Amino acid sequence: MTTYTRTLACRICGAEIPLGPSYVCEECFGPLEITYDYDAIRREVSRERIARGPRTLWRYRALLPDIGGAGSPVVDLGTGCTPLIHAERLGAALGLNRLYIKNDAVNPTYSFKDRAVSVATTAARHFGFDTIACASTGNLANSVAGHAAKAGMKAFVFIPADLEEAKILASSVYEPNVIAVEGNYDDVNRLCTLVADEYGWAFVNINLRPFYAEGAKTLAYEVAEELGWEAPDAFVAPMASGSLLVKIAKGFRDLVRVGLIEPKAVRVNGAQAAGCSPIATAFR
Amino acid sequence: MTTYTRTLACRICGAEIPLGPSYVCEECFGPLEITYDYDAIRREVSRERIARGPRTLWRYRALLPDIGGAGSPVVDLGTGCTPLIHAERLGAALGLNRLYIKNDAVNPTYSFKDRAVSVATTAARHFGFDTIACASTGNLANSVAGHAAKAGMKAFVFIPADLEEAKILASSVYEPNVIAVEGNYDDVNRLCTLVADEYGWAFVNINLRPFYAEGAKTLAYEVAEELGWEAPDAFVAPMASGSLLVKIAKGFRDLVRVGLIEPKAVRVNGAQAAGCSPIATAFR
Repeated sequence: MTTYTRTLACRICGAEIPLGPSYVCEECFGPLEITYDYDAIRREVSRERIARGPRTLWRYRALLPDIGGAGSPVVDLGTGCTPLIHAERLGAALGLNRLYIKNDAVNPTYSFKDRAVSVATTAARHFGFDTIACASTGNLANSVAGHAAKAGMKAFVFIPADLEEAKILASSVYEPNVIAVEGNYDDVNRLCTLVADEYGWAFVNINLRPFYAEGAKTLAYEVAEELGWEAPDAFVAPMASGSLLVKIAKGFRDLVRVGLIEPKAVRVNGAQAAGCSPIATAFR
Repeated sequence: MTTYTRTLACRICGAEIPLGPSYVCEECFGPLEITYDYDAIRREVSRERIARGPRTLWRYRALLPDIGGAGSPVVDLGTGCTPLIHAERLGAALGLNRLYIKNDAVNPTYSFKDRAVSVATTAARHFGFDTIACASTGNLANSVAGHAAKAGMKAFVFIPADLEEAKILASSVYEPNVIAVEGNYDDVNRLCTLVADEYGWAFVNINLRPFYAEGAKTLAYEVAEELGWEAPDAFVAPMASGSLLVKIAKGFRDLVRVGLIEPKAVRVNGAQAAGCSPIATAFR
């Protein structure tokens, strides 16, 4: 039952509360984040132990929210350990001889969301929830539906009513309850916050958010391990909701802190596709 | 430069010719198939050596067409070693406690065709071709385009003119030359046979077919390795063009022949999706 996961702490005021399905500081309304016993992790974790673990993100279990502790069940569809491809020809065109691309499209439900949802669903089941849910515009709905099917839990996915049908088709395979909401994604999200309180469901990206967000750290862990336990000089990631960049940077810091890699400043850059780039446009 | 690949032999009359871009027996017009020195493979190959190989289908290189031999370059996008998922809940519903699903949708261009095309493209480059090509209704075109991009070769993909746009979109990323042909897939295939002779291109599923077809054997190799070097009792595969079943069965026989698994009769069943099942319908 060894676990290195300690508390939820406010990123603003530092107030700590016990682990649970909470996401807002009761003192100052700041966001809550998982804390770990890094000294204990440093003593226990090693490159060899990780190498002997499963070929999924749970090989980094010591560095993930793990309420039940070693040996307790996790909800794992086989997420993570996705290929890091040496893009030799693209690299040559750009003048980079060590350009790598992480193909996270080959996760079980075909997006990086599986990392977050695997961690959040594992926590939700441990807290006794029988239903997981989310506000989504597509990828997250797929992932929640897939993880609920694996865990034998109920799934409710809330989507904007005008979402393209193709985006929800992959979710439908797992037969979740799909709730189409009149309004945009922000409206859906606000409704879900109310529903989470009212129905006592585990919304992976709302009341389980502190657990959910930690999943993205595993992108950094995997890249470092694939590079022979070394951090890259630079990491370019999609902006997504903004949290991805923060968690990737935290992932590399974690590895230094527990002695798995040498200290190194990693430049983490956010990018957006030209066809949908509000943040990049605003930044310019 | 060790290689265990020997000749091309006719499946009908047994006539043998040297390795090359040939697919029809000059004696009897029967189909040609690769032959191997299985005794030499048996002496050299071991579970441990395979485990130390790359996490792609090329870990089974001794059992694949390998004209250049060990150390010579292969065209490898990172194909194979796809997850074998223990489908516990589906298995329980069907009364099977060891039901596994092989997810070959997470290959580099998202289908099992990458197995065949990786082997065929490697052979084509060795034979001195600068262009690979195919007749395709979608998946194969994606794979040929992707492998050409990786290998720095030209790609020509021939498709029926009425193919859905979504099917060709993934190929277009790699900027192949796309030739839309008025007619159905059989018409496209006939045209390609003429083009292969006329232009001297490597059509992966025509003049490189003996090499191409061997790629599918790796599905059997991977399943056996994942099960702890044991063949399954039964294997259900898509009918596809018919060759897939044959090569999967050959894959398990290969493993027995070189001493990697114990002899076992594997029942290989072909299946078709209910929405498009001409063979299943005709069989009934």
